[in-house]
Amino acid sequence: MSATSCPPSMRRLIHELSKLPSIGEKSALRLAYHLLMRDRSESIALADAIREARERTALCEECFALCEGPRCAICTDPKRDRTVLCVVEKPADVMAIERGGRFRGLFHVLHGLWSPMRGVGPERTRIGELVERIKRLRLEDPEQAAEVVLATSATVEGDATAMYIARLMRDLGVRPSRIAQGLPKGGELEYADDLTLSHALEGRRSLEDR
Amino acid sequence: MSATSCPPSMRRLIHELSKLPSIGEKSALRLAYHLLMRDRSESIALADAIREARERTALCEECFALCEGPRCAICTDPKRDRTVLCVVEKPADVMAIERGGRFRGLFHVLHGLWSPMRGVGPERTRIGELVERIKRLRLEDPEQAAEVVLATSATVEGDATAMYIARLMRDLGVRPSRIAQGLPKGGELEYADDLTLSHALEGRRSLEDR
Repeated sequence: MSATSCPPSMRRLIHELSKLPSIGEKSALRLAYHLLMRDRSESIALADAIREARERTALCEECFALCEGPRCAICTDPKRDRTVLCVVEKPADVMAIERGGRFRGLFHVLHGLWSPMRGVGPERTRIGELVERIKRLRLEDPEQAAEVVLATSATVEGDATAMYIARLMRDLGVRPSRIAQGLPKGGELEYADDLTLSHALEGRRSLEDR
Repeated sequence: MSATSCPPSMRRLIHELSKLPSIGEKSALRLAYHLLMRDRSESIALADAIREARERTALCEECFALCEGPRCAICTDPKRDRTVLCVVEKPADVMAIERGGRFRGLFHVLHGLWSPMRGVGPERTRIGELVERIKRLRLEDPEQAAEVVLATSATVEGDATAMYIARLMRDLGVRPSRIAQGLPKGGELEYADDLTLSHALEGRRSLEDR
């Protein structure tokens, strides 16, 4: 980038934009131009939206999803089924499942997975808080948190974390289950890889007696 | 997007992000998550960079490129060759040419092209200011602005605008030229389309005696 043709404040903007995921230097330059050339009010609206979202959102004290206020809309909704808890890796996973609109239980966001390969232990996730939360829920009402659906990704870390939590859940007298791994909707059996296929044959598996 | 799982300030952020070019709803969601989950200081740095760039940058009074201060670093550089002016559509084009580092003259940014198809007349661009600027430069020193390189895109609008300006330049006694249209560097002749090929055969054309 020639120093003469790019004002310093624009260079800083390009630098900040290029830190975003999947925004390379060229995209950052294009975005910076757009932000400088369109209506001022539109660009300021984005700057304000970033700042405001950072100021207002926090993690729900209960489930660690993103929310405004101490507890999220799902945890405080009396219509949600409190007998089932769905455990996910990150807040985006809560929204992905909510988009489906089928699951009516509560969530618990781990904010990470157990990853022995990368030296990340379970204590770096919200697994401890999950155990405490389940104890609390069952004390309140023994019907609550009867089942925990382990909805982590179908990766080595996702599976390892699910197995680890399943063991803790059995110790608490909670029924652990794992979301089904199998053919994606629309996926043709003929073109599925062997691993996907063998998981598809198994379907949703109970981890109760492993 | 389920109302329960996405806090309002995050929804606003997604809405603002999705107005950016080539950012769809899914990318906006991913970017919003990133902005909310990474270090607060990093997200605020981006918000500040947008605001600061909008506050500090303006259009150069002389050439209409983006700059901080009334005149840009190119217009105020005594080492630039003031006999040649390169006319481009937008500020990004100035940077693209500056990256090459070969052109040592001045620029003039039109901020638009003449587009009869879309009902955009030449008065909506900075062509009037170009004419006034050239008159001023030549009054100062008849050696200045002897040639105007028309570096608009090789599109219908780019060509039409170049032709239009070329005529005005000839009336002012200025030598208009058009950047060469031809094979891109690395482009194989065998695979070039007919139009590109015929333009490539012509090379950089003087518009002086048309």
